[in-house]
Formats: sequence, structure tokens, C-alpha cells
Amino acid sequence: MTRVLEQTVPVTFRYAVHFTHGLFQAHNPVLCTALASATGEPAKVLCVLDGGVSQAFPDLGARVAAYFAAHADALHLVAPPLTVPGGERVKQEAGWVRAVQDAIHMHGIDRHSYVVVVGGGAVLDMVGFAAATAHRGVRLVRVPTTVLAQNDSGVGVKNSVNAYGKKNWLGTFAPPYAVLNDLTFLTALEDRDWLGGLAEAVKVALLKDAAFFAWLEEQAGALVARDLEAMEYAVYRCAELHLAHIAGAGDPFELGSSRPLDFGHWAAHKLESLTGYALRHGEAVAVGLALDCTYGALQGMLPETDWQRVLRLLLALKLPVYVPELGTSAQDPADPRGVLSGLNEFREHLGGRLTIPLLTAIGHATEVHAMDADVLRRSVELLRDLHDQPRGASWLPTPTLAS
Amino acid sequence: MTRVLEQTVPVTFRYAVHFTHGLFQAHNPVLCTALASATGEPAKVLCVLDGGVSQAFPDLGARVAAYFAAHADALHLVAPPLTVPGGERVKQEAGWVRAVQDAIHMHGIDRHSYVVVVGGGAVLDMVGFAAATAHRGVRLVRVPTTVLAQNDSGVGVKNSVNAYGKKNWLGTFAPPYAVLNDLTFLTALEDRDWLGGLAEAVKVALLKDAAFFAWLEEQAGALVARDLEAMEYAVYRCAELHLAHIAGAGDPFELGSSRPLDFGHWAAHKLESLTGYALRHGEAVAVGLALDCTYGALQGMLPETDWQRVLRLLLALKLPVYVPELGTSAQDPADPRGVLSGLNEFREHLGGRLTIPLLTAIGHATEVHAMDADVLRRSVELLRDLHDQPRGASWLPTPTLAS
Repeated sequence: MTRVLEQTVPVTFRYAVHFTHGLFQAHNPVLCTALASATGEPAKVLCVLDGGVSQAFPDLGARVAAYFAAHADALHLVAPPLTVPGGERVKQEAGWVRAVQDAIHMHGIDRHSYVVVVGGGAVLDMVGFAAATAHRGVRLVRVPTTVLAQNDSGVGVKNSVNAYGKKNWLGTFAPPYAVLNDLTFLTALEDRDWLGGLAEAVKVALLKDAAFFAWLEEQAGALVARDLEAMEYAVYRCAELHLAHIAGAGDPFELGSSRPLDFGHWAAHKLESLTGYALRHGEAVAVGLALDCTYGALQGMLPETDWQRVLRLLLALKLPVYVPELGTSAQDPADPRGVLSGLNEFREHLGGRLTIPLLTAIGHATEVHAMDADVLRRSVELLRDLHDQPRGASWLPTPTLAS
Repeated sequence: MTRVLEQTVPVTFRYAVHFTHGLFQAHNPVLCTALASATGEPAKVLCVLDGGVSQAFPDLGARVAAYFAAHADALHLVAPPLTVPGGERVKQEAGWVRAVQDAIHMHGIDRHSYVVVVGGGAVLDMVGFAAATAHRGVRLVRVPTTVLAQNDSGVGVKNSVNAYGKKNWLGTFAPPYAVLNDLTFLTALEDRDWLGGLAEAVKVALLKDAAFFAWLEEQAGALVARDLEAMEYAVYRCAELHLAHIAGAGDPFELGSSRPLDFGHWAAHKLESLTGYALRHGEAVAVGLALDCTYGALQGMLPETDWQRVLRLLLALKLPVYVPELGTSAQDPADPRGVLSGLNEFREHLGGRLTIPLLTAIGHATEVHAMDADVLRRSVELLRDLHDQPRGASWLPTPTLAS
């Protein structure tokens, strides 16, 4: 009586990630060539700007307009750029998605037209969600302006806004049409954002590439001193490792339970929320990495010398390894005020079985399906002690497991 | 200076389409086996019901509850089923997507839990959009209850709601986790919905399968007489052809300009809107097929004898080939009150170049990129004359192109 048709739908997404300088200088061909038009007419473009970036580069709007004017044969800017607030509030406040979709509707942006968004990760996430759900997806060109967005979130396949008080509750998987990384934008970043973005580079090096980790150790001083060339390589290599993982790990749309790239992220997401987003994502990831590496070392999974290298690199990059909110993790996993409850929230967001990536060595990871609350509490204490130790500009404490 | 990383993201979606009777009878294993749990815990299920279906089957809620109670070892119904209005209004009215997401949030439905939706195409579309954007996609199990949803929209990879006065403006591409076609639901349909759904079967037969078209000609009488066995095959074969197209045509997420399955749909979408959705989708598709086939015949692309077979089959299935709103197409393509403006709206929704599928023979289609307004006007007149001809219960006029 019952018949079954088994359906298999293969879909292949392709996009290019460009690394350039001065994207909106009239002679720079990157934007022009990335936005092909199939119809012979100039490609229709709606541009959305991050208000924080516009503030750092007050002539940005004018430069964008001038670029489009200089390339009017190939590109048609449908309206003056739309400016939205930068930072997490644009994902937090209702109405911004609708504002972007109003503009998409009003200016007749269709599936073969473009939304070009210039901004940090939060703005890319929000505009990405608006674009992905308009006409079931109009073409999104991301121009990430922070280290974190250029080397991690901006090159990936996700978008989102917050809802029900939860980060990224609403969103889709939707690869961009293209990503244009303009390194010049990084020069305007505050130190904490310049350095914070490197936490994702440390993370992916720890998971995938011991040589890149060693390079980060060597270049830590240059990176802290805001050497743009060093940053350029750090961003490029980190983006490359992320892209290779998304393409090659077999589950880009996260249909399963495993999320190896979310190393250190269960605690990071919770700490962001516990601090009301005062702790920024990269900083929270640094603390999360410190916590999970310490946990692994205490469990005997990660050699102590590797653990010491991780902690010393984070400290050398002036990234936090402890915040007071972590201390409350030394309580009950069921208490939502404590970081330990982040374990369950992480499982809930993914669904299925709890799956946490942990290191076995620098460059090599495995997965566990439970974490011991006592060992996590000891990890937190160890990090608090390390955090409390005096350190100078040129020397760092050497952490030890023995207490 | 400029470097480029080329990214390729291959994603493979898999889902099964089951055909069964009495899905919610306690002994029917289909639902139970389709909803696997990875954790060993019973699978968490939020159930959403179409109010129209609940009205036709007043014991549906109780039967669903009884089914879950009988299978409590494998399935956990998180709450009494949520009932939403049936029909287009559920896509038209703001608030229903949020109502479904409120329930998803409140009951902790995650990416490894299930939303089971029982209803017609509009309800599947709306709930599908809510599910696809919650946690970037929770598992959606569709239980379509109409011919149209079982043989066409419900087995595909799209969801949507209406916005800005436009059908399907908001939505995503998101394959379901499973589709469970329960033929028993069809017995409650009004005649116009029973027959209207066959328009998609005629369409896919015309595009892909002359033998299926001939079968529809033979079985037209049985189908009109509501023979369930004939309908079962019609639904199965139509679903099978749709699934094969989605899987095999190379562009399931419609990244290009070509949409061969949208044969007859440019006019259909416009007629639905012009009639304020009084004309149902299947009926509108029948008129759209009649129009585009007549256009093709007048252009000499489709042999007159094939065209006659198409019109006679539509008439034999008691499907409309003309509605007064089509008459207004005899005006200006720029006038949004006329059906001809549907051509441009169709192009806008897809973006890129206008691409219209047209037949060269029964079972064979090609594409054109423009339609002649004069020939369309003559097509409309021809269909109006045919519509005005008297016809009996047992005989049909033979349409001719000569006028």
C-alpha cells in the first residue's frame, strides 16, 4: 500500500573571495568585474553601509557614489546607500531586516540584481538574512570591514538576526555571491577589534594548521604593533582555512551534530550574552579557547607544553583568557546565570547530541560528547590565577597545570 | 596586489516522499519510521494543522493526539497541535510566521526536532518558511492534504509567504525532511480542488511525458467521477516527474533564469492576483496552460492536433481555459490591470532575462525570451470563443485555430 520515492537534490554553490586594497578607488576593477550582468544592462545594485564604518570613513558614501558614477556603463546604483547601525544592536532590534527589504522591494532588486553590504559581521549577518529571504534570495556581495568578518563570518555561508533573546535564532544558510575583502578598512579598527579578530585565526590554526600557529607565535609582536602586512597574511590564511573547511568537511549546512569550527564557542556565546555583548565575539572566543584547552590539558588529552603555547599566544596577542563572568561557571550547569549553562544552550541550538571539539595537539582536534563540571570549575580557577598574575609588556607568565 | 580564493560548496539534500493511506491510524508505521531520533530519546514534534482540514476532519486533532500517545516510545508531541487558517490568507496576513516560531521557541524545537505540518499548499508554504528560518532550519515534515500539494508544491524545495502585495515575495529554498502523502485526505476536497490540482499533472505531462498525458486523456472520466485509484496514480506520477526534474535539471535553487516547470505560470500568477485569489492556483494554471499552448499553436511552434488535445483534456477535466480577467490582457503590457503585465512581473521575480517555456509537441518543451502581444491577444480571443461555445456533459467542442 505504501510507496516511497527517494529524492536526492545536489546543489553546488560557487563564490569568489577577493583580497584587495582601496575597493572603491575608481581604478580598482574588483567590484566591477565581480558583479557581472547577464542582460547587457548595467547590474542593479542596492548598497547598505554600516553606520560605524561610515563614521570611521566619513567620505565613504561619497566614494561609493563616485565609484558607481565612474562605472555607470557596468553598474547602476539604484539609490544613495542605505546606512544602518553597526554592531550587535542591528541584529537585536526588530525592524532593520524589514528596512532593507523595503529598499529591495522599492528599487526592484531581483534575483539577478545585487545587494552590496559594507560593514562588520553583525551588519553582514542582518543584511544577509534580509537578502536571502527576499525573492527566496537576491545576490549578496559582502564587503567585510573587520578582521573577524574578513577572516571568518564574512566568508562563510550563514546569516542571522537575534530573536527571543537568543543570538542568531533567526537565519538561513545562504552562500554569498561574492566576498570582497578590502584590507584598508582594517586600519580604522580600535585595537580591541584588530586583535579580537585574531582569536578566530588562533582557533582555526589550533584545529587545522600547526604551521600557521607557529607563524602566529612568531608574528604576535608585529600583529600587536598593527603591522598591516602581517595582518594581511593572517586574514588570508585564516579565511583560506575556513573556506577549505566549509567546502571539504561534508556538512556546510550543518545538517548533522558536528561543528568542529565551533571550537571554544559554547562558552564564547554564553559569555557574550552574560556580559550583554560588552565582551566582543573575538574576545569571547579567546576566553572560550583558553577554557577548552585548559580543560583538555587537565583531562590529559592535550600535552601541557601545547597548552602552554596556546595560553602564551593568547596573552601575547593581548587577548583575554579570563573574565569575571567565567567565574560564575563554578556553579550549577542548570543555572542560566553561569557559563556552564552554555553547554546545554549550545546543544539546543544545534540540536541532537552534545558535540564539543577538543584538541589532542596543536593542529589536531577530536570531539567529545560530555564535559565534566568539576574539571571545568578547576579550569576556570586556573585561568583566574593566570589572569591575576602580574605580567609586563615584554614577558608573560608560563602557565602550569600543577596547582 | 589582489588575490582570489575560489570557493565551491557542494551540498546534497535527501528526503523521502511516502504515499500512504490513514497516516494517523495507530498501526500505520510511516510517521513513526520517518521521524528518526538520533539521541535515543523520543523525537520531539510540534504539529501544525490547517484549519480547513480540521474542519473537514473534525476528529483530526484527536487522531493526531492518539497516534502520538500510541507511539510515545518513539515520538513526543510537545504540545496540542497548533491550528492556523487554511488557504492563501495564512500567507497574506502578517503574524502567522511569528506564531509558528513562537511555538518552536517555546517548546524547544531544535535542528534535530520536527515540525509536522498537515495542510494545503498555502499552510505548507507558510509553516515551511517559519521552520526554515528558525535556528537556520528545523526539520520540516510535510503532510500535504490537497492534490496540488501532494503532486507538486508539497514535494518541492520551496517555501514562502506573500509581502508587498506580491505572492511568494518572502521565502527560502529549503528541502523538507520528509513528505508524507496520505491519499485519504483527498476524499474531503471540493470538486474544484480535486480537479484543480490536476492542472499541474497536465502541465508536467505536457513538458515531460507524452505517455502520462495519454493516460490522463484515458482516465479523464474516472478522475472527474472521483475515482480514488485513478487519482492515486495521477498524484504519484506527477510527484515523481516533479521530483525527477528538481533533482536532475541542474538548478534546484533557481540560481539561473530558466524555470521550465513554470510553464503557464506567468499568466497564472497574475490571474490569481487579478481575481483576488478567487481563482485557485490549479485553475489559474489551467488557464495559463491554455493561453501558452494557444500562443504556441498560433506561432506555428505546436502542431494544431497537439493543441486540440491539450484544450480537450483541460475541458474534459472540467478545468477553466478562460476567465473574464484574461480579457483585459487584450490591452497594454504596461497596464498592471491586464494579464500581459504578468510577463514583466514574472521576469522581475526571477530576475535576469525573460524566459518562458513553450511546447513544441506534447511531452516536449523549449524556451522563448519574448512573447508577441498581438498573438497573445488573438490567443485570448480564441479561448473566449471556445469558452462561449455550448458543451454538454458527454461531448466537447473541437477547437480550431482558423477564425
